[in-house]
Amino acid sequence: MTDTTRHKVIFDTDPGVDDALALYYLIRHPQVDLLGVTTVFGNAPVALTTRNARFLLREWGHGAPVHAGASGPLTPDMPPEAFPTHIHGENGLGDHPVDLDPTDDPDDAAQFLIDMIRLHPGQIRVLAVGRMTNLARAVQMAPDIAGLVRDVVIMGGAFRVPGNITPAAEANIWGDPLAADIVFGAAWRVVAVPLDLTTRTFMDRSTLNDLGARGGPGMRLVADLSQNYVRFYQAAGYDGMLVHDAAAAVCLTDPDLFTLTTGEVRVLSDGMALGLTLMNPADRQGPMGAWQGRPRQFAALEGQPQAILDRIAQVCTG
Amino acid sequence: MTDTTRHKVIFDTDPGVDDALALYYLIRHPQVDLLGVTTVFGNAPVALTTRNARFLLREWGHGAPVHAGASGPLTPDMPPEAFPTHIHGENGLGDHPVDLDPTDDPDDAAQFLIDMIRLHPGQIRVLAVGRMTNLARAVQMAPDIAGLVRDVVIMGGAFRVPGNITPAAEANIWGDPLAADIVFGAAWRVVAVPLDLTTRTFMDRSTLNDLGARGGPGMRLVADLSQNYVRFYQAAGYDGMLVHDAAAAVCLTDPDLFTLTTGEVRVLSDGMALGLTLMNPADRQGPMGAWQGRPRQFAALEGQPQAILDRIAQVCTG
Repeated sequence: MTDTTRHKVIFDTDPGVDDALALYYLIRHPQVDLLGVTTVFGNAPVALTTRNARFLLREWGHGAPVHAGASGPLTPDMPPEAFPTHIHGENGLGDHPVDLDPTDDPDDAAQFLIDMIRLHPGQIRVLAVGRMTNLARAVQMAPDIAGLVRDVVIMGGAFRVPGNITPAAEANIWGDPLAADIVFGAAWRVVAVPLDLTTRTFMDRSTLNDLGARGGPGMRLVADLSQNYVRFYQAAGYDGMLVHDAAAAVCLTDPDLFTLTTGEVRVLSDGMALGLTLMNPADRQGPMGAWQGRPRQFAALEGQPQAILDRIAQVCTG
Repeated sequence: MTDTTRHKVIFDTDPGVDDALALYYLIRHPQVDLLGVTTVFGNAPVALTTRNARFLLREWGHGAPVHAGASGPLTPDMPPEAFPTHIHGENGLGDHPVDLDPTDDPDDAAQFLIDMIRLHPGQIRVLAVGRMTNLARAVQMAPDIAGLVRDVVIMGGAFRVPGNITPAAEANIWGDPLAADIVFGAAWRVVAVPLDLTTRTFMDRSTLNDLGARGGPGMRLVADLSQNYVRFYQAAGYDGMLVHDAAAAVCLTDPDLFTLTTGEVRVLSDGMALGLTLMNPADRQGPMGAWQGRPRQFAALEGQPQAILDRIAQVCTG
């Protein structure tokens, strides 16, 4: 039988500053077994996000394997993307010194996801906090994994609030909307932690620095590499940072802090609202249009922001 | 000087059962001068909506001129549309007997709008409760009217709630999304009364029938022709009807009952989310995408549903 008190997690990520906090949360969480890390382009090119994942795991003394994934989107006709160096720095970790070279690993993240899900049927929980490209390719290559994974928790989407990369779209979904549409359309359980909630999981600067001071060298590294990220938010008038990805990690471990809305989800993969996530709520009546026949998925539109932040602080300093 | 206590209104409409209630409200309102009615396809073909507008005005003894408008959308590549006879009846007025033949008027609604707006600079208020086709054509033919109209109040859109014709779209906008995008993009003041609010302006059946019983023959006609519409809602589990269009009429006369949100609006005119209305709220930060450079318009996302219903009852029985 599956031990539901433990979580066998594969973390799909593009570190990325708030990715780093989420990764540290997973490593520190006493009920999480981190079985592997898959990387994707997004906050930086995949050669850097893969390198950054290896660097963080080495610094934190964790032996999880890192598998490099997609270097670009599945979505056709996407405009060339500028990486968000103003948010995550030139090196993807807030320009904190990283003494490892960029990688040129083969792209085998999707195959690793497939292999691990088949190896642990009913047990793997995928936490995906970047573009959904690796997950979409995995389920396209091996549709059977949809019935074998325990669930998929993602950071992404903006359902009843504006986006952050355009008025329509949240950045992770916008970066590969076709991949996201495939992920929401597959017959596995997807729980999205969207901007509706993560724009409220705001960690103020003094809390971050306090955690860095009292959480040991691992948490100090998170606080150090977050300083550029905090400066980005300061320019926007905030004294602190949104912890998008770590909020999704908490949703995986502490679902009681989140209120889920269910319905069929589509993602627009072209046009001016590219990357828009739109749910047909389960209680809606009326014609279904292109939402017809899609599986019902879940979005954490509401939750307890302070309790989520407290949980992050507790786990990362525990 | 403009007398702002009086409202020179042109009503653009596709009667349509809830259109009838809105028209009756305008006729009965002591501060409204109804200068004309323009008609559009939507709830029924334009030959029927024009005929229905004439019938209603004759029954109610009002001499406003009726000008027929568009018989189809501006939006290219729209699928052929089935008229919603299950909601508004085969004749567009809930199959209430109508002793006038369908019309074959020339399509001059857009020109009538232009002429009237130029004739009364700064004074005309357009209340549009069907597809936005006539308004879009008018402002394309004569861009100067954007600076001459007092404002444009529309019933349409679904900003933070699901649509009614698809999960993405409200029916009026969906029926000609390109026209709506033109209307929201012109340099006039647009106030949209969307599903966000009108799904809460629910008139229960006993109230409707009570108004019909005590409101005189004019209101009795509204109640009589609404019975099919109420049956449509009964099939969906409601005992009464949503008064979408009359709510927009109240927004024109009693703006204090509505709370407006402002921002740039785009309407999707192709793809699976055809007819989606999406506002970039004024307090949002971040890249603007296709919302860049658009005028800020208004949407009544919130309001006082019971007070709106009470106002309708008061005016229609006064």
